[in-house]
Amino acid sequence: MVTDYKYEQLESEKVFKDPVHSYIHVTDRIIWDLIKTKEFQRLRRIKQLGTLYFAFPSAEHSRFTHSLGVYEIVRKMVENFSRYDKWTKDDRLLALCAALLHDVGHGPFSHSFEKIFGTDHETYTKKIILGDTEVNRVLKRVDESFPEAVASVIAHTHENKLIISMISSQIDADRMDYLQRDSYVTGVEYGKFDIDRLLRVMVPSKDEVLIKDSGMHAVEDYLMSRYQMYWQIYFHPVSRGGEVLLTLIFNRAKELYERGYVFKQPPKYLIPFFEKRETVHDYLILDETVMNFYLQEWVEEIDEILNELADRFVNRKLFNYVPFYDGFITYSELESLFEAAGIDPKYFLLTDKYSDMPYDYDRPGSSRQPIHILKESGSIREISAESVVIQAITGLDRSNAKLYYPKEKVMRIKDDTIKKKILNLLNELS
Amino acid sequence: MVTDYKYEQLESEKVFKDPVHSYIHVTDRIIWDLIKTKEFQRLRRIKQLGTLYFAFPSAEHSRFTHSLGVYEIVRKMVENFSRYDKWTKDDRLLALCAALLHDVGHGPFSHSFEKIFGTDHETYTKKIILGDTEVNRVLKRVDESFPEAVASVIAHTHENKLIISMISSQIDADRMDYLQRDSYVTGVEYGKFDIDRLLRVMVPSKDEVLIKDSGMHAVEDYLMSRYQMYWQIYFHPVSRGGEVLLTLIFNRAKELYERGYVFKQPPKYLIPFFEKRETVHDYLILDETVMNFYLQEWVEEIDEILNELADRFVNRKLFNYVPFYDGFITYSELESLFEAAGIDPKYFLLTDKYSDMPYDYDRPGSSRQPIHILKESGSIREISAESVVIQAITGLDRSNAKLYYPKEKVMRIKDDTIKKKILNLLNELS
Amino acid sequence: MVTDYKYEQLESEKVFKDPVHSYIHVTDRIIWDLIKTKEFQRLRRIKQLGTLYFAFPSAEHSRFTHSLGVYEIVRKMVENFSRYDKWTKDDRLLALCAALLHDVGHGPFSHSFEKIFGTDHETYTKKIILGDTEVNRVLKRVDESFPEAVASVIAHTHENKLIISMISSQIDADRMDYLQRDSYVTGVEYGKFDIDRLLRVMVPSKDEVLIKDSGMHAVEDYLMSRYQMYWQIYFHPVSRGGEVLLTLIFNRAKELYERGYVFKQPPKYLIPFFEKRETVHDYLILDETVMNFYLQEWVEEIDEILNELADRFVNRKLFNYVPFYDGFITYSELESLFEAAGIDPKYFLLTDKYSDMPYDYDRPGSSRQPIHILKESGSIREISAESVVIQAITGLDRSNAKLYYPKEKVMRIKDDTIKKKILNLLNELS
Amino acid sequence: MVTDYKYEQLESEKVFKDPVHSYIHVTDRIIWDLIKTKEFQRLRRIKQLGTLYFAFPSAEHSRFTHSLGVYEIVRKMVENFSRYDKWTKDDRLLALCAALLHDVGHGPFSHSFEKIFGTDHETYTKKIILGDTEVNRVLKRVDESFPEAVASVIAHTHENKLIISMISSQIDADRMDYLQRDSYVTGVEYGKFDIDRLLRVMVPSKDEVLIKDSGMHAVEDYLMSRYQMYWQIYFHPVSRGGEVLLTLIFNRAKELYERGYVFKQPPKYLIPFFEKRETVHDYLILDETVMNFYLQEWVEEIDEILNELADRFVNRKLFNYVPFYDGFITYSELESLFEAAGIDPKYFLLTDKYSDMPYDYDRPGSSRQPIHILKESGSIREISAESVVIQAITGLDRSNAKLYYPKEKVMRIKDDTIKKKILNLLNELS
Repeated sequence: MVTDYKYEQLESEKVFKDPVHSYIHVTDRIIWDLIKTKEFQRLRRIKQLGTLYFAFPSAEHSRFTHSLGVYEIVRKMVENFSRYDKWTKDDRLLALCAALLHDVGHGPFSHSFEKIFGTDHETYTKKIILGDTEVNRVLKRVDESFPEAVASVIAHTHENKLIISMISSQIDADRMDYLQRDSYVTGVEYGKFDIDRLLRVMVPSKDEVLIKDSGMHAVEDYLMSRYQMYWQIYFHPVSRGGEVLLTLIFNRAKELYERGYVFKQPPKYLIPFFEKRETVHDYLILDETVMNFYLQEWVEEIDEILNELADRFVNRKLFNYVPFYDGFITYSELESLFEAAGIDPKYFLLTDKYSDMPYDYDRPGSSRQPIHILKESGSIREISAESVVIQAITGLDRSNAKLYYPKEKVMRIKDDTIKKKILNLLNELS
Repeated sequence: MVTDYKYEQLESEKVFKDPVHSYIHVTDRIIWDLIKTKEFQRLRRIKQLGTLYFAFPSAEHSRFTHSLGVYEIVRKMVENFSRYDKWTKDDRLLALCAALLHDVGHGPFSHSFEKIFGTDHETYTKKIILGDTEVNRVLKRVDESFPEAVASVIAHTHENKLIISMISSQIDADRMDYLQRDSYVTGVEYGKFDIDRLLRVMVPSKDEVLIKDSGMHAVEDYLMSRYQMYWQIYFHPVSRGGEVLLTLIFNRAKELYERGYVFKQPPKYLIPFFEKRETVHDYLILDETVMNFYLQEWVEEIDEILNELADRFVNRKLFNYVPFYDGFITYSELESLFEAAGIDPKYFLLTDKYSDMPYDYDRPGSSRQPIHILKESGSIREISAESVVIQAITGLDRSNAKLYYPKEKVMRIKDDTIKKKILNLLNELS
Repeated sequence: MVTDYKYEQLESEKVFKDPVHSYIHVTDRIIWDLIKTKEFQRLRRIKQLGTLYFAFPSAEHSRFTHSLGVYEIVRKMVENFSRYDKWTKDDRLLALCAALLHDVGHGPFSHSFEKIFGTDHETYTKKIILGDTEVNRVLKRVDESFPEAVASVIAHTHENKLIISMISSQIDADRMDYLQRDSYVTGVEYGKFDIDRLLRVMVPSKDEVLIKDSGMHAVEDYLMSRYQMYWQIYFHPVSRGGEVLLTLIFNRAKELYERGYVFKQPPKYLIPFFEKRETVHDYLILDETVMNFYLQEWVEEIDEILNELADRFVNRKLFNYVPFYDGFITYSELESLFEAAGIDPKYFLLTDKYSDMPYDYDRPGSSRQPIHILKESGSIREISAESVVIQAITGLDRSNAKLYYPKEKVMRIKDDTIKKKILNLLNELS
Repeated sequence: MVTDYKYEQLESEKVFKDPVHSYIHVTDRIIWDLIKTKEFQRLRRIKQLGTLYFAFPSAEHSRFTHSLGVYEIVRKMVENFSRYDKWTKDDRLLALCAALLHDVGHGPFSHSFEKIFGTDHETYTKKIILGDTEVNRVLKRVDESFPEAVASVIAHTHENKLIISMISSQIDADRMDYLQRDSYVTGVEYGKFDIDRLLRVMVPSKDEVLIKDSGMHAVEDYLMSRYQMYWQIYFHPVSRGGEVLLTLIFNRAKELYERGYVFKQPPKYLIPFFEKRETVHDYLILDETVMNFYLQEWVEEIDEILNELADRFVNRKLFNYVPFYDGFITYSELESLFEAAGIDPKYFLLTDKYSDMPYDYDRPGSSRQPIHILKESGSIREISAESVVIQAITGLDRSNAKLYYPKEKVMRIKDDTIKKKILNLLNELS
């Protein structure tokens, strides 16, 4: 009986129209059922790119469409890999389910939220798959141990390293989908690479996806796309300015709650998080609809710091920013001046640092394996030993930092000496 | 002083990256200021295509990006039209502001909401432009009468018919943007037409935008794109099923309120609408964040009809549907059977009819003028007299209807005779 | 032995990069061998769109890439159709070979050449497949009767009507490829339709490819694309002006040859055609390289008519044109005036008429069947009975005509009365 | 009078539809007249990518469309640069004409032809502009010295270094067009970069085009596109195999001519080249129509080497190839074995080496300047000092070599010892 469900096919194939992959194809009953669960539908209410819409207005897409896209890429990989035998129906199903569900644990505005409340989307992905959820009930119809198998693929601990590398490695379905999708949605060219060709040159081995020799240039192109997307799009300082605001807002709300502040409308769904006693159920309720509702409510709060920050976020009155490298001018110099001027630096002066490695060859502690090339002779080599371009960018750990502050507030400082000092320092930075 | 602001240019041009127009260019201070108002920023929180994401998952874009797009098209039109003299700085500004603001009065899930609460986005556009709003304050900096001028362009009552026809006619910037944008975002080919060419063949006349003779095929292509987008995308029954649910939910919530039902969490921002005493301020608060928050809350309401409908909407458990033409089988036949089975037809049986004319030549009462062709000889002719294809589709008033119902509920009817009768009738329809 | 070849697969799949289909996939030895024959390679030397590059400079692609594209579409159709059983390996091979070779008999500048020399590309396709050629030798390796089978599919006489309809019907692989390809290459939007979706809604029946009910709009879109491509692209009067010149040139060269004129360099490969005794071998030699070489040589010929016309063709000094409908002004009026002015109307005054039916429901004598829709109920209906748009354009036999003449020559007429009369008549036409 | 022509505008703008730039816009009479000259029309008969169609079948476009594209990019640059004052009508015209004509001196299959016959397209560009040609006559209508000015821009010797850098530098209109165009035509993604953005970040200075700081990533993307196009497309060994054949054919034909061999049909238009006495007129006649005609004729020549090589080229029976690095196995080892086997190594064994620098910072002798970044502060820096990615690829002089030989010929060697030795050596290389 249980096995029946496992291999059950839909009467006729279902498709979703998708601008990146043209169509998403579903033939397995279990995939269809997973998509219909409320935990998966919830991903429609969490934006893929958080606050990036502040910088790129059209970046309005959700984690739902991305998750379908990752599933579709893995579906194609499995289809291609079947040329190289050894691919069982069970492995196929495991790969498809893990692909579909890999992001199911994301919360609203993941990064800033996790920072303040100490939640972690990877932990929640596991909890949602293993807990008392619709997703869990669907997976268990395959067999009691199936949820655990899916969760362990996503957590990198499953014994089938090949499937893990399809979903999470330096050239996986996740990255291939989001680079293409984010590029399509924002309208930039940077994220485009030849995904059909990449899929054609991938060869499954026991422990990982290998790249055929002839595909080396396609990988170079993919890595450069990734590099460009990080520096041109994902790290856009206007978008990060939105995250800075969120971090400050969450911080303030938490501080107010801890102090016993009485909210005009108590943010009931946030309280378990304030009190660090949230359950999976609490977590699942807290999507971006709820979070944005509170943010909009807080525009009318009594607390002036909270209402100013919320107003800035909701109505996009972002902080200004200047490049910042501690040392040249120190944060504490500015901090003291802000304090002297009566502007709380804790909420109105923030540095934000970010960095990315386009390709990470073997940094100690990296959970991602290097990319391996399969030579025609059958030998296997790490890619940066083969490509001068990749060698050039390997381990390149580029970082950058900005200092965010509210310019209008500074301009309104009444003490001219302090004001001038601040403006001079900011000017030296820019 | 006032005039200074009117013609004030930004120090350097600002651009927004846009996937449809490549870039949106802003050089006027007033446009920049309007975009920054909270009423315009609010459009980020209203989806362009309502519930279409139920059928096309990637249809997640907002009225904000569409509004920028309409502005950009009008900006290009004005640039092109300046070849044909007579275009003043004042007319240019009027056209740009009206283009940007033409949708500022939209509310959450416009159609179903307006149907139940009797609000009207055109009226609200006017109220927002003329009322006590940031938009109004920006426009008034040009001159006291400028808000009225902008509002009357949008309301089709301004004396400059040319500008009206640029923003609202059968081939206007509004339609040109949304066909392209919705097509791009959903990934379908239907909505694509050669917008560059259309812009090149447009010639301004005193009262309207004319189309050069040589552009007739481009207009045919545009009208067919429009036709296809309506029937393939906008009228998708799965999306309309989402709207049907919304209509029922709003109806139920209103009925409950009127009956004195006590909501677990009172939907305070809806109450002015229940009581038909809403102000512009109430209207502006009610975006899709707020509306979705209530819908999510209602999943947990005591009232079983409201919580079932809300659950269906939030977790996408849509009604089933069959084609429906009253007469063959009557609605009342089914209605009685539903009642007999204890399923309230008012909330669980709904017909939905929709129709569109791809091109409307001179239907009495149409507020849109026909499209006119400018012949090389200088004479002007209505386009369907020139194009056999357009003639063929002129006045073609195609309509369609569906009957929506919850299949699982029907399957659970205990009285077998009633159940069979219902299933037979539904079967005859499909 | 022979059967071995028939089903022989390449060691590893070969692909051609293609901008329309992304990749062309070849797995069968026989397809690979056919592509390598010199008769198929010759298609690289014949432009797909003849003289269209005069109007659209980038229309420089050959029948070679188009033929690969038709093959690829049929390959995908067969793959899809295999879901509906009954598809044998032999039928698959027959369909693929016929698709690849359907245009192998095209000559240089097909239309004008065929008009003057009475050759016919369909006859030559057959002769090449059945004659003493590399193509024939490859096909015969399957079995002695295989060339005949392939030829009869292309000639519409094979008993397998389904395969015929895949390659040649009102919605076949040939049209699907050329609309997309010509649209891509010229950069116009008109020819774009959703080919993936069309392929998905096609269902094989015994005698033809049917279209699923749900695909009706995709067919509407395809037919409108076809209509637009004909009137906007293929019938562009500048391109047809190039064909007019070719017709005149071939006519003149033939007349000169028949009169015993001595060419500076005898066009030896054309002589068999002048003498109506050409063989398949002669035909295969005569590609556009050879034909263009002669055209370039003729710029230096002694005969003034030939050298003028050749110079006009080679250096794109095209005739002017005006709309022309015999009756209003008669051709003979102008003819007499041209004669009186000493300009030979036979070579310098030509009317060109063209027409197309976007969809041809049941014109007597049409070799193409109507398009049939497969309803969900299983019944089959002709598409114009289902679609108001298609009904509107069915049988629409739009035609147009132009009169071509050399303006500079007219301007240089010394007799002012004649000149004025001609200019007046031309003016009335335009 | 003369000045009138210089600034003469067309009555109405003319456009060419173009798939890369959407439209090419022409408003100046002189540009229109240059396009109509026979020397410019001749570019339709020279392929942009030589023998690349052997590897990428759709690479069939000509230097004509590329030349229009370069003109269009320069036209847009000039339009953008007019924001930064100091741009005179005369400079504009000079830039446009030089852009349009920069490739007018290309001959058939440029590289192989130039190698054997010692012609040089840059020299011929100059000769065509200054010689007795239609192009020269059009240019002279501006003023007697104008042809010299245009030629000196193309030759890098004009005093206006800014205009030179627009047309020929490391980030010029020439490269921007061909990368985009070749990418579009072949259907690969590699050559795509954001040309609109690049144009927006370009700022004219006295001596060159500078790139605004904010455009650094766009330049990185452009340089990586260039790198990928060279290694993935332009250096494709199958395409280079076609050039190898051409080189051998030209060599053989020349040798035969010098030896007094009597051709079946004397290649009259090549004789001036054989005899090193060709004029501009001879050069202009020799386009790819003529050259291909001779190649097709030679398939039937008596000389067995010439007819085999020509047959291979015309019917695409290319040589095989293996990687080759002299030293490991020497060319002379194989040469002796070929000779011993009776296969002339001069015509059947060829090494081909190619290399490219993606960005060339200051190689001595480089005629291309480095790319300079304009910082917000106003200072100017060489780009590799600013970008870690560009630094990584600067001066990277990657090269590669292949050895070409006819496999079937080797397989037919009768002496088994020699054959085995050859096969072993080839095997070690691959």
